[in-house]
Order: sequence, then C-alpha cells, then structure tokens
Amino acid sequence: MSALEPPGGAPGGSAARPDAIRRHNLALILGHIHRDGALTRAELTSRLGVSRSTVGALVADLTSLGLVEESVPTGGARVGRPSHVVGPHSAGPFVVGVDVDVTHVTSAGIGIGGEVLGRSTVPIGPGRPRPERVVDLVADAVAALVAGCARPVLAVGVSVPGTVDRRTRAVGVAPNLEWRDVPLRDLLSERLGKRLGSVLPVWIGNDADLSVLAELSRGNARDCRDVVYLIGRTGVGAGVVVNGAPLMGRDGRAGEVGHNVVDTNGPECHCGKRGCLETFIGDQALLALAGRDVPPTEANVEAVLADARAGDERALSAVRTVAAWLGQALGNLANTLDPQRVILGGSLSAVLELARPDIERALEHYAFDPHHPVELTLPRFGADSALLGAAELAFSEVLEDPYLAATVP
Amino acid sequence: MSALEPPGGAPGGSAARPDAIRRHNLALILGHIHRDGALTRAELTSRLGVSRSTVGALVADLTSLGLVEESVPTGGARVGRPSHVVGPHSAGPFVVGVDVDVTHVTSAGIGIGGEVLGRSTVPIGPGRPRPERVVDLVADAVAALVAGCARPVLAVGVSVPGTVDRRTRAVGVAPNLEWRDVPLRDLLSERLGKRLGSVLPVWIGNDADLSVLAELSRGNARDCRDVVYLIGRTGVGAGVVVNGAPLMGRDGRAGEVGHNVVDTNGPECHCGKRGCLETFIGDQALLALAGRDVPPTEANVEAVLADARAGDERALSAVRTVAAWLGQALGNLANTLDPQRVILGGSLSAVLELARPDIERALEHYAFDPHHPVELTLPRFGADSALLGAAELAFSEVLEDPYLAATVP
Repeated sequence: MSALEPPGGAPGGSAARPDAIRRHNLALILGHIHRDGALTRAELTSRLGVSRSTVGALVADLTSLGLVEESVPTGGARVGRPSHVVGPHSAGPFVVGVDVDVTHVTSAGIGIGGEVLGRSTVPIGPGRPRPERVVDLVADAVAALVAGCARPVLAVGVSVPGTVDRRTRAVGVAPNLEWRDVPLRDLLSERLGKRLGSVLPVWIGNDADLSVLAELSRGNARDCRDVVYLIGRTGVGAGVVVNGAPLMGRDGRAGEVGHNVVDTNGPECHCGKRGCLETFIGDQALLALAGRDVPPTEANVEAVLADARAGDERALSAVRTVAAWLGQALGNLANTLDPQRVILGGSLSAVLELARPDIERALEHYAFDPHHPVELTLPRFGADSALLGAAELAFSEVLEDPYLAATVP
Repeated sequence: MSALEPPGGAPGGSAARPDAIRRHNLALILGHIHRDGALTRAELTSRLGVSRSTVGALVADLTSLGLVEESVPTGGARVGRPSHVVGPHSAGPFVVGVDVDVTHVTSAGIGIGGEVLGRSTVPIGPGRPRPERVVDLVADAVAALVAGCARPVLAVGVSVPGTVDRRTRAVGVAPNLEWRDVPLRDLLSERLGKRLGSVLPVWIGNDADLSVLAELSRGNARDCRDVVYLIGRTGVGAGVVVNGAPLMGRDGRAGEVGHNVVDTNGPECHCGKRGCLETFIGDQALLALAGRDVPPTEANVEAVLADARAGDERALSAVRTVAAWLGQALGNLANTLDPQRVILGGSLSAVLELARPDIERALEHYAFDPHHPVELTLPRFGADSALLGAAELAFSEVLEDPYLAATVP
C-alpha cells in the first residue's frame, strides 16, 4: 500500500474534512507505527513517499485524535538536531484481547503497537465450560481491565478454539468446549452492554486464525505471503495465509486440520471419528504417551515438557512420537498449501525446540517434494499469539479508519 | 471489475492512444464476450455501466483489432429494430491448448469464447514418456494446428500432471511422467521456434490448476470464490481457488493432495511412500480393485466404468470402494479449505455419477462439520477442463491487454 496525494496536488484539507485520501494516508502512518513502534518523521516521510509537510499534517491529525504523540529521544550521542519520533500515544485508546482456551481465559488490555497494559488469567473451572460461564468470566475480565485503565477503550476481540462464522461471528463447532452454534458475539455484547452501560464492539475469531494474524501483522510472518500457523493445545488447528490474505473458506471454517483423519484405525476422538490428527499431536495425546492420566491443563502439559527438557526418557519419547506425527501432518499441509513457512504454536512450540530433527525427518519423508523444504519457526509471541491476534482483530477498524477514534467516549 | 471513465469525463481517445483506462475497458468487454459469448451492445452498456457511445467506441476498437465482430441476428420474430450483437470475430486469433497426460497428448486450436477450431489426440507410446518425445509430439501437434488454420495464433498453453514453477514454468516433479526438473517452457519454445520460424509464447501449468481455471472462467465455478477441482486420472491432484484467486503456494506447488498419506500401512506408491491418496482413488487403484492387471489407459479405465454402469458387480464394487476413499479425502479437504464446491474431474466424474451416495456418506462422516455440506459437481467441460484451462492460460495476456492482438503477425 502506498500513500496517495490528493488529486489537486496540494496536501490540503484538515481533520474536519475527512476525505478518503486523507483517511488512507492516516491509516498508513498509524499502521507503520502500530507494526514497528516509534518512527522518526524522516522515516515516515521516506516510507510514505510524500512530502515532509504532508507527513507533518497527518501526524498532527493523528495526534489530535489521541492516537500518536511526538517526543524527542533522550540519551545517545547524536550529532545535530535530533529528529522527533512519532509513537503510540501514552494515553491513547486500547482494546481488550481475550483468549478463551478449554481450561482458562486470558485477557489483556493492549495499546497501539502491542503494549500490554494489564492482563489476567482465570481458570474456567472443572467440567464442561458452558457458554454462560465463559461469557461471565470474559465480561468480568473486560470490565476489570476497562475500570483499571483511564484510557479510552475501542473494542473487544475474543479468540476461541472453534469455527467462527465470518459474518455473524457466532461459534459454529468448538468440539473441545463442547459448543455448537453459540452466538458468542451477541451474548457477550449484551452482557458487556449491561455491565459497562455502553456499547463496545465485540469481535470473535478462531484461535489459529488469530494467531496467524498476529504473526502476520507484527510477528514472524511479516515477510510471508504463504504461511501456516499450526496451533496445538487441547485442540489442534491451522491459521492459513495464502497470497498474503487469510484463508477463511466459504464462511470461516477453513483450517480445521486437527480433525483430518490420519489413521482410520487410530484412537477414538471426542468428535466421534477415529484417528483425527488431534489424537496424535494434541495435548491429551502428549500426556497419554507420557503415561500421565491427568487433564490437559497448561500445568500438566508443562510438567511433561519440563521433564523432557530435563532428560526424562519417557517424557522425551512422548515428545518425539508427537514430533514424528507432526512431521507427517506438515507433509500433508505442505503438499496441499505449499507454504513458505509454518509457525508452530501452543505446545507444538516446545515439540519443535525439543525434537526438530524428528519433525524434519518425517516432513522430508511425507512431503511431495522433499527438495523444497518448508521453514519451521516458533511464534514471535509465544503463547500469546492468539491473545494478540484477538487484539489485532479488535484494532482492525481503527487501523483502517483512524477517524473512528474520535467517536470513542 | 467495473468500467472506468476517463478523468476528464469524455469517452475520448482512440486505438492509436492506448491509455490505461481504455485498455481496462477493452479488456472488460473482451472478457464478457469470452466468458458469455455474443452480447448485444445494450447488454454491454448495462454491464459496464458506461454510455452507449463509449461502448460503441470500444467495440469499434476491438473490431479493428480483429477480436470481435458485430452482426444482426436473423430469425426470431422480434418487434422493433434488432440490436446488433457483438461476438468473437470469425477470423479472429486463436490459441493452442495442449493437455499432456501420462498416456496421450491432446491438442486443440481454441478461439475467443472457447470455440474449438480443430483437435487431435495422439498416444505417447509405450514406456516412460521422455521429455524430448513429448516436446516432439506437442510441437508436431501445434505446427499442424497452426498450418491448418488461416487465423493468427497468439500463444500455446500446456497442461502437465506435475508441479510447475510459477516463475520459470519449468516442471518440478511429475511423478507419473517420471520427470524431475524439466524446463518444459524453454524446451518447447526452442523447438517451436525452429518448426514455425517465429516466436510463439508458451505457457505451462499444472493440470488441476488449469482445470479449476477453466471452470472458474467459463464453467461450473463461475459463481464461486472458494472452490476445489479434484482431478483423478493416473495421478490425483487438486486445483484450488480461495478468495476468488488461484492458490498457488510459495511457487506453484500447492494442491498436490494425491500424495497426502491417508494410511501409513497402505499400498506402495511409485513416489516411494505408502498409502498416498493416489493409491486409493487414482486410475490404477480403480483397475486393481476391479481385478484388471492392465495399464491405466483411458480405454482400460473406461471399460471398467462402462461395466459398472452396466451393473457388473465387481466393477461397481471397485467404483464404490474408490467413492468411499474419495469421500474421506473430501472430508480432509473440506476441513482444511472450507470450499463451497468441489468439482470432480477425470475418472472421478464417473465415480460421482455412479456412487454419489457412497461419497456423500463418507464425506459426512469425515467432515469436521457435517451440517455444513460441500456441493459436489461435475465439470462443465468434462474431460476437457485441463485442455481448456491451458487455452485460458494462453489467452490470459490478450484478455488483460487486447492491444497485444495488434502485434500478432
């Protein structure tokens, strides 16, 4: 995306006349600062390819919208006049990102540029995580973050381990939550409206889709047009980017590779089939292979991984078995999608760190063209990709139209 | 894509001043006629949303380029002055589409709108189809079609059952041809240059990718943004469209689902692995299941299908077994890509006709969300999808810039 000059040639116009070109250029600058942090006016001028005075006017607009602020860097021993740097406003608006996993809900207030203003993790509690219970927990967390921060809040983004309809933002199927057709956006909007006394836009997305969005926007997929984020937690799913854009499918259900059957005689899956990929590389598989009959909480999974790191043979063997199945799954994904890079998230990050050779050996065997290897990498944001992706989703409207910040109470 | 008016407002300009807007609008009209056949000036005016006089000037340009011609429809009992219809020029340029399969080469001269001007099919002959032999056969076929047609030829498009590098148009891996790293475009360009004494642009594409292109342009995927064309011949592969655009992957190797392993204990595949999808639903699998130890030629496969249609139990049982595996494969594809529609080509068309319930039953079992069915359809172009897709590829430059027709000798 490049900057536009007004047809007349003059930089003209003001925040009071929000024409499309100015909006486009404001969005460009805000996007650069959101993705890269503070930048000098000179850097912005060069990136946008417009005049210094145009950049000055645009920065002034973004400042008056409360989105950015300028400062003079201190320290260092630069010669000459220091260039002003433009960064996220220290009192600027924020969003709330929420990551609903099977066993816990993590929430964070996140500012432009990814600054974490506060966060909390609460267990969902034993038994099936009913939608009402999750909506309560999320509403509590959002209300606490909003109350605890004097800055304006723009929106809420929620990550869920299930399919999300791209239009209604309802959850279709979330097998590990045992949810089916839950109108999560509507439920949460209503609950939040009552709690906060005002309307806050709510966005819902699939965990793997949001993870790849976070890595594509500000993480380890920034330079990629074809990338897969494979997340392995209790469930397994893929967030896919092709031709530089998210692959959503007909209505947002693409990437559910955790329920691709890889062995028709494999273990029973909670979805009713046998031998789904999830039964070979999900957290429950790892725990079972390590001989531990415990629920797939973060702590239990981390215990196996810690033992494997410490050299425990059974734990390491479990990790290596998962790694081999993971390599086969990556071979199928590579054949189907031909990505440049696959980012391994959730507990699969630790599997990559502990058993990369096992993964690569299986991938080489199962890929249609082994002379053409896929890059395997860790997520930049570690376990927070889905959380930060939820925040990206919540930021998407203001990043497209910074004038929306003026309408926030 | 919508029509553009020149900034000044006037339709102005002539073929002698090929500015970007005029080129865009000419491409729009040519595209409508290529996809839909003859259209009246009134229809074009309404589709483009520009003035009658603008359409008149554009049609005049396309006529002088030899691409379209106007006629007054005869017959019928219309009241009032008949509207002139604009259709492909009867002496207009053509392309040569070539479909290289494992056992034979099919070639056709194809005009704008898909008119077949002549075609030939030659067997490749026994044994491994060496690249030199295939280049000879293709060059012979192209030379014969060019010599036999007085109209100008624009380009040659060739479909191959293997991966094609999106930049070099070299074949990477074509396992059923036993080819690896064959610079097919360069080889064929050189041979054709010698045969014809002039340079003819040569395009190479993967058979499944070209099949979905043909169906997307003028066939049964025209209304789809997310569609898969699964082709089953000797080899099995998928052409995938997501977000309305072809999924090529990093460098054109996406869609090689025939070598996704679906059973690690399955039959040996010629690629060196065990249990590739191709060993369950490819033509050789069908022949083996039907108890026929013969090579997978079109005639041998057709014999099994004819017997199955006639009620032969063993042949029908073979088809139904293929159908069940096909349904499982479609489940995995649906989970991964969430397409609206899957078009089944090659011998899989007959499997759909003979055993749709078996496919749908397996698909329902293996799809992550069975309440959300995928449409299964036949290709509009039957066995010619790859051939016509190769022609689409060869037409792509002139469809983007109709002025190129003026440079053809």
